[in-house]
Amino acid sequence: MPHFTIEYSANLDGRVDIGAACEVVRKAAVETGIFPLGGIRVRAVRCEHYAIADNRQDYGFLDMVLRIGEGRDLKTRKEAGEHVFQALSRHLDPVFASSKFALSFDMQINDKDTSWKRNNIHDALKMEAANG
Amino acid sequence: MPHFTIEYSANLDGRVDIGAACEVVRKAAVETGIFPLGGIRVRAVRCEHYAIADNRQDYGFLDMVLRIGEGRDLKTRKEAGEHVFQALSRHLDPVFASSKFALSFDMQINDKDTSWKRNNIHDALKMEAANG
Amino acid sequence: MPHFTIEYSANLDGRVDIGAACEVVRKAAVETGIFPLGGIRVRAVRCEHYAIADNRQDYGFLDMVLRIGEGRDLKTRKEAGEHVFQALSRHLDPVFASSKFALSFDMQINDKDTSWKRNNIHDALKMEAANG
Repeated sequence: MPHFTIEYSANLDGRVDIGAACEVVRKAAVETGIFPLGGIRVRAVRCEHYAIADNRQDYGFLDMVLRIGEGRDLKTRKEAGEHVFQALSRHLDPVFASSKFALSFDMQINDKDTSWKRNNIHDALKMEAANG
Repeated sequence: MPHFTIEYSANLDGRVDIGAACEVVRKAAVETGIFPLGGIRVRAVRCEHYAIADNRQDYGFLDMVLRIGEGRDLKTRKEAGEHVFQALSRHLDPVFASSKFALSFDMQINDKDTSWKRNNIHDALKMEAANG
Repeated sequence: MPHFTIEYSANLDGRVDIGAACEVVRKAAVETGIFPLGGIRVRAVRCEHYAIADNRQDYGFLDMVLRIGEGRDLKTRKEAGEHVFQALSRHLDPVFASSKFALSFDMQINDKDTSWKRNNIHDALKMEAANG
């Protein structure tokens, strides 16, 4: 945890650098201070086929879902979510300025009783920190 | 909101027009009358790799998840879901007739306290309506 | 039900046979004995764009979410999840040995009141069994 999954309409090709958008989200997630660095995973899925609103073809969307573990109170989650959303929203200002576009972000909490993980990135980060 | 995400097995290529399926879902969602037009986003994700049932390669699937906001009662959600599902199911009759196929649809409700959005499609639709 | 959706970083190309990973999950799901064979659907979505941890480009991830229907108690769900996770984790041992990698698995329960399905694979399997 945390997992950020972005889905976006394929007509953003050439208008949004999706790799850069992932990095904006990752950086903002680090800045919240509530997530272990080694657990942050942001990714994007391009959607070739879509239908939006009244189906005009020049509409676009980018939707993000965050899945996190249990144990953070609502205030903490709201502040962290707001921080990440504002960073992503600012990054997409040019898209809003030049087109009809819908951005959205929702947060989900995973059930800790049915959650499994194995991750050697945490250890790699600790080793780097120790080796300074 | 609402967000419809379709995942489908890549072996539907050439058998299902996925863009048309998205449009069937969008249109049915509009017909329910319970969603703001400018918030409707349907999209599809093609899954190149999959394993179904006893792993015969000619099985196919199409699975859809709808995420909506809070505030609609169960009866309203059931009726809306039924309407959208039946439209999609009818559209896929030829696939059921010609192959072994699994269609599914589930609805999820997003937590309003951790939900963010920015959308200039609503305003564009209002302006169009005003300009008639 | 059940639906297993895998998302993975594109840098696993050439290092993990994703189709084989889907089959490992499918087989383990069958072995749990708690799922109807004709309902098992495993698929994978390749994520071209991603940002992980401190954004070193050689990190990788594979994340899986399982959506199942209501009606199984926690003990049953935990044991089934553990079985599937261990099978997938063992399959990915070489990836952990050769790189920094994060594997994760979460289980979700669908609301039975807003769940729709149509599936002719069940019947095909029954007919095969009868003709067997």
